[in-house]
Amino acid sequence: MAQAIDLATIRRQVEDVLDDFLQHKISAAMADRLPEEAPQILHSFLFTGGKRLRPLFCAIGWHAAGGGCYDSAVVRVAASLEMLHAFALIHDDVMDNSATRRGQPSLHRDLTLRHTVRGGASNASLLGVGLAVLVGDLALAWSDELMHTAGLSDAQLVGVLRHVDAMRTELMYGQYLDLVSAGCSLADTESALAIARYKTAKYTIERPLHIGAFLAGADADLCRALSAYALPLGEAFQLRDDLLGVFGDPAQTGKSTVDDLREGKHTVLMALTRQRADAEQLGVLQSLLARPDLDETGADRIRGVVETTGARHAVEQLIRAHVEQARQALEQASLPPAVVAVLHDIAQAATVRDS
Amino acid sequence: MAQAIDLATIRRQVEDVLDDFLQHKISAAMADRLPEEAPQILHSFLFTGGKRLRPLFCAIGWHAAGGGCYDSAVVRVAASLEMLHAFALIHDDVMDNSATRRGQPSLHRDLTLRHTVRGGASNASLLGVGLAVLVGDLALAWSDELMHTAGLSDAQLVGVLRHVDAMRTELMYGQYLDLVSAGCSLADTESALAIARYKTAKYTIERPLHIGAFLAGADADLCRALSAYALPLGEAFQLRDDLLGVFGDPAQTGKSTVDDLREGKHTVLMALTRQRADAEQLGVLQSLLARPDLDETGADRIRGVVETTGARHAVEQLIRAHVEQARQALEQASLPPAVVAVLHDIAQAATVRDS
Repeated sequence: MAQAIDLATIRRQVEDVLDDFLQHKISAAMADRLPEEAPQILHSFLFTGGKRLRPLFCAIGWHAAGGGCYDSAVVRVAASLEMLHAFALIHDDVMDNSATRRGQPSLHRDLTLRHTVRGGASNASLLGVGLAVLVGDLALAWSDELMHTAGLSDAQLVGVLRHVDAMRTELMYGQYLDLVSAGCSLADTESALAIARYKTAKYTIERPLHIGAFLAGADADLCRALSAYALPLGEAFQLRDDLLGVFGDPAQTGKSTVDDLREGKHTVLMALTRQRADAEQLGVLQSLLARPDLDETGADRIRGVVETTGARHAVEQLIRAHVEQARQALEQASLPPAVVAVLHDIAQAATVRDS
Repeated sequence: MAQAIDLATIRRQVEDVLDDFLQHKISAAMADRLPEEAPQILHSFLFTGGKRLRPLFCAIGWHAAGGGCYDSAVVRVAASLEMLHAFALIHDDVMDNSATRRGQPSLHRDLTLRHTVRGGASNASLLGVGLAVLVGDLALAWSDELMHTAGLSDAQLVGVLRHVDAMRTELMYGQYLDLVSAGCSLADTESALAIARYKTAKYTIERPLHIGAFLAGADADLCRALSAYALPLGEAFQLRDDLLGVFGDPAQTGKSTVDDLREGKHTVLMALTRQRADAEQLGVLQSLLARPDLDETGADRIRGVVETTGARHAVEQLIRAHVEQARQALEQASLPPAVVAVLHDIAQAATVRDS
């Protein structure tokens, strides 16, 4: 029996790298009389929670291509992906004007509250957004710095940067599609699935797997096999997220279950709801979705429509079908048994997770 | 007589690279059914104006270290610096809530106007800010991609990325200091000069010179000599910008002369004004500076105080002193005569420019 892949260790090692990197940034800023609060804010954002999914997939990709014990370069590349994700979350919350993240005020809200004592509320809100954008920018720049200083050979670094370039462009295009489609009352599932593919499947699963696999010398066949698993599973993850964004328990998810509805976020769930709604139900959606002042009562009425049209059930079925497709891809791939086992466990989590 | 350095050619070559890179992004997005409007927006932002200062300094650094004709890698690295600057300007305008840039609506305002037809004004404003943040993020990611695909040797790329990492951190810290000090009624010139050093002197002049010089194989002595010129000149540039931000001609600068006052931007100009103001003048500043509703009449009253305290004159003297220091550094450095000549011309521009 192959040795199981130790995800707890890579998670701890990645957190040690992030902690160490930011502690150095804090000390350096203090020595140069630069604002050490910027790395401090980023540190507390990174350590308020997070599943470290992208570093884990990077480590799994490494093992998939036959990598053995993690060397420090692989851990640092994995940590760089988590730093990139801090950037993505911070900017995402600004763009969506989300009030909470991981059960706490989102970063721009938190920074707004801290500065409200100083100026008027409108200035504080502008400053909170500005500082959050800036801390996000630093996270993006520092994710690069982590990569550049990982201790890779020059050739490895140059190769990995090609994956990083593609991954960031995909992430940003996915976010662009997400933003411009919000509030547009779209009923097609195809464009909603495209958002899920770019924002989640490729960015969270496929590219981190490829990056880890590349570092261990993977060939194109292996990358294709990993994609065949990653893409349907990633879409399943996003479909689950969309359900949790409407029906989840905020105490478990750390996220509001009204924000997505208030934004009028374009999801497969809402597209299917629209396709199946009768005139009266469409009227409810029309009058309540994407209203900035939507309250819990209104949200409950929308939830009722999503439920009675059968859209919620249909999305659960879609998740099962996508996960099944990912599982079949695993069976057809020639991967080490320990890798297959851990990827099956992760697929299972997409079908049942509640946070 | 040494051949003069041809800045017009590098400017044109850089623009060709930027145009070509973004045209490819537009085609690729269309082929993949991704939102081609994102690279289109960035293209029109980049080609609405801009002096291409950072690419020019990069080219001058290249010549300073004995580089001959530009090879395509140097041009592409220079273009990457301009793409980075697009990121910096777009996010800067979001953070400062600036209404105009290069005589046009700033990007977030422009995107807000485009989307106002669709939703309510408050949603449109949020969407405008979100899309501008995102287009800025793309510019940052694509400045990296330009660098990564410049055709440098692996060792050169790895070396240049160290400069880029340092440059971006300095830029972002400078911006952080700028944001948190706005509206704080500070009277110390030292912290205002630190902002100028990080946001302008290092980012606009020192690092681009170093990057170009590095590509041509510069040693540490040459980099020090370039810094001795770059830092005082960069501070002079920022002092000139601060004057233009209050006393400039918007038709020439493309920028409002009320925005800096409305923000309560912390500059050497305003710090000196505070140091020299009597009780009545301080009262004027107190009641008008950093007011979001400041109008032209109010701005004129502030300008009167800046003028009569002698602060405007003092800043003009500071600019001359800084430029003189930069010129002396040039005389002491062992640089090719053509490089010395062009750096003198640029220093001259800092003392007299009106845009």
